[in-house]
Amino acid sequence: MATQRLAAWATSLRPESLPEGVKNAAARSLYNYVGCAIGGSKHPTATKAYDAMTPFFGQPTSTLLGQRRKVDAQHAALINGIASHVHDYDDTHLETIIHPTGPVASALLAFVEYRPKSTAGTEVLCALVAGIEAACKLGLSVWPHHYDIGWHITSSTGSIGAAVAVGKMLELDTEAMAHAIGIAAVQSTGMREMFGSDTKSFHVGRAAQNGLLAAMLASKGFTSSLSALEAKRGWANIVAGGGTPRLDHYIDQLGSIWEIEKNAFKPFPCGIVCHPAIDGCIQLHHELAEKGIKIDDIVKVEEKVHPLVIELTSKRTPSDGLEAKFSVFHGSAVGLLLGKAGPAQYEDSVVRDQAVIFLRDLIDAHSDETLMADETYLTVHLKDGSTLEKHIEHAVGSLEVPMTDQQLIDKFIDQCSAVVGSDKVKGVSDALWRLGDSEDVKQILQGM
Amino acid sequence: MATQRLAAWATSLRPESLPEGVKNAAARSLYNYVGCAIGGSKHPTATKAYDAMTPFFGQPTSTLLGQRRKVDAQHAALINGIASHVHDYDDTHLETIIHPTGPVASALLAFVEYRPKSTAGTEVLCALVAGIEAACKLGLSVWPHHYDIGWHITSSTGSIGAAVAVGKMLELDTEAMAHAIGIAAVQSTGMREMFGSDTKSFHVGRAAQNGLLAAMLASKGFTSSLSALEAKRGWANIVAGGGTPRLDHYIDQLGSIWEIEKNAFKPFPCGIVCHPAIDGCIQLHHELAEKGIKIDDIVKVEEKVHPLVIELTSKRTPSDGLEAKFSVFHGSAVGLLLGKAGPAQYEDSVVRDQAVIFLRDLIDAHSDETLMADETYLTVHLKDGSTLEKHIEHAVGSLEVPMTDQQLIDKFIDQCSAVVGSDKVKGVSDALWRLGDSEDVKQILQGM
Repeated sequence: MATQRLAAWATSLRPESLPEGVKNAAARSLYNYVGCAIGGSKHPTATKAYDAMTPFFGQPTSTLLGQRRKVDAQHAALINGIASHVHDYDDTHLETIIHPTGPVASALLAFVEYRPKSTAGTEVLCALVAGIEAACKLGLSVWPHHYDIGWHITSSTGSIGAAVAVGKMLELDTEAMAHAIGIAAVQSTGMREMFGSDTKSFHVGRAAQNGLLAAMLASKGFTSSLSALEAKRGWANIVAGGGTPRLDHYIDQLGSIWEIEKNAFKPFPCGIVCHPAIDGCIQLHHELAEKGIKIDDIVKVEEKVHPLVIELTSKRTPSDGLEAKFSVFHGSAVGLLLGKAGPAQYEDSVVRDQAVIFLRDLIDAHSDETLMADETYLTVHLKDGSTLEKHIEHAVGSLEVPMTDQQLIDKFIDQCSAVVGSDKVKGVSDALWRLGDSEDVKQILQGM
Repeated sequence: MATQRLAAWATSLRPESLPEGVKNAAARSLYNYVGCAIGGSKHPTATKAYDAMTPFFGQPTSTLLGQRRKVDAQHAALINGIASHVHDYDDTHLETIIHPTGPVASALLAFVEYRPKSTAGTEVLCALVAGIEAACKLGLSVWPHHYDIGWHITSSTGSIGAAVAVGKMLELDTEAMAHAIGIAAVQSTGMREMFGSDTKSFHVGRAAQNGLLAAMLASKGFTSSLSALEAKRGWANIVAGGGTPRLDHYIDQLGSIWEIEKNAFKPFPCGIVCHPAIDGCIQLHHELAEKGIKIDDIVKVEEKVHPLVIELTSKRTPSDGLEAKFSVFHGSAVGLLLGKAGPAQYEDSVVRDQAVIFLRDLIDAHSDETLMADETYLTVHLKDGSTLEKHIEHAVGSLEVPMTDQQLIDKFIDQCSAVVGSDKVKGVSDALWRLGDSEDVKQILQGM
């Protein structure tokens, strides 16, 4: 009954019944999402998708964030989804490494602008919560084997999350919502082999489209299966990667344990597993400066890291910005050298900079199974034989050391200024930050 | 190297190098496809999809077969794909139960009409062959565990086949073709749990869209992975369902063993595994008539069938035409009662007809592991205690007893007359039958 129970829970969720912490997490998630989508809107990956799809654009109803133009809702979902993920700067549900807002919000906002009637901010946030809870509970149900075998869990669960969110906007009844979940479930998109290529962020945009399509079909009476998730040859068993799905266990928690409250925001635009090392290197950058020690004095940097860091981000010699996202060595090098690791430090030119490469090649990383995923020990060896040590117990952006509201705003301003103009960025940021108070979200998104 | 080898083979395939048998199989496959797409074009499943997607239609370049109207190529691929499969009347690559032409041709024809320049019939058939070989070789590589775990193998491989076919039209080089294969591979669509619902035929249309999208993106330089199929966390290992993929074994065969030559055409619009029983029942219908025995004299019908018949088509009391496609009992009943099992015999009204239901409930089917998949033994028990026996060694539509050209033409006329008009159907059929001779396939498809 997992499919129908999820559908029933999602359809009955009301804005006024959301706990304050959930509302706040939803507002922060959506705000961070729009910043990432604007920040990624000029990236070549998004541009190539735009160019490829131009011949198929329909009625321009929905904003391409950061581009001040509209396309049809399906293509807005695709391209905004790509843009939101392309810098690997979005949010993370740490238990599953799902980046939950991208697929859900890309479909949801595109649909909100498409529909003729206005939509209150509270409704949008409620639909976002429903979609994110759906995606994360399903992700937990098949974790970790689903991810281990190679699914990109953000998009493989994101199609379903997007369907649930748009399904709420369409006011689907429980049965139609179950069908929407089923139609989304059969479109299992995203494989880890694509990490480091344009296709990684395509996964997010495609998941958004999958969910939007599923909900639209269900709204016209299109049928799937009311047992799509739990059936013998249904979603969970097929994508469980050899594990035993625990659907009922996690569906039981809907509305009592809120996954969106465990959603963290990235301070650095790269794979989250290397954030502790980057955080530590930035702190070391400032300590070195305070002590008057030059970068040239460094002869070696040793990092003890969680095994996933080696598994996911051990690209020794990244050739461009995309590959650098999967290099703990590049992230550490720019942290140490420049004291920053924002999108600007992942530009191709920085990745190919000789000073960055020289320092990068002095860094070694060793797997240590006793560490937590957000923990690292760093040792900087200097020419004079002395060392500097740094222990990061929880990286910035973790649940223990979350990004503050001000840090989120700074991140937004930092990545959006160049795109929307430094004169306008504050106004855009303010409007989005207060989206929950809006009577018509469409007005906020117009021409953004 | 499977991905790059497949890409290299596909890009180098030329119309003039296709063996005669392959050209003939391609022409028959495409002809049968168009007939099925026209025949299914008025089905509610296709209509619901049309209604749901109408708000997103772009420039009308590509024909909705049987509907005398155009939509953008992406939506034509979706809706034609749905229509081609909705009656379960299409083709079957018997070794994998892939229905190969639907996803590939739906993308290919939609693209041919979209592109400004004209396309010769030989080019279209060559691209179709490349796409079908790709899908079937990949299907074989992961058969049977991929299907056993629950993937709808037609669409899960069809996305890739469609990408290869459109990639040929776009004249992608080998590297871009490999990326197109990768972008298609991450969109693994279709689960068996959906059999009997609208979503089953959605799989085919969505696979067509997936492949078209993948090829378009690759043509703009969008990257995926050059090892998308064979990588540790790539397509084959993820979707192998616990089996060991045999990619190289089947890629080795490209161009020497042609899968399209093993493509069979359905004489009945339902799951192929129950065709032997239906074939036998139709033969028994005529024998009973010749002997002057009335249907009312039947007290019981016993069928010995291959185990897959029970696994896939044992719906005892189908409630409508869609469910009846998965009922060997309904198919047998109409065969025995009416001597036919065409689309008309799968209308809801026939499924609910009391005479059909009465006979259906007299039929028992027993699994027999010693039988071939296209074999059956039937025994009709009569009131007077006597019996009639029928052994079908190979069902009509099998490779041993293939549909003749004339039978294919009769099938086309039968399912298309009501849609395109009985005055025009012969002309449409003739034009499509000679598509390989055409200098401009677009002309044939105009206004169809």
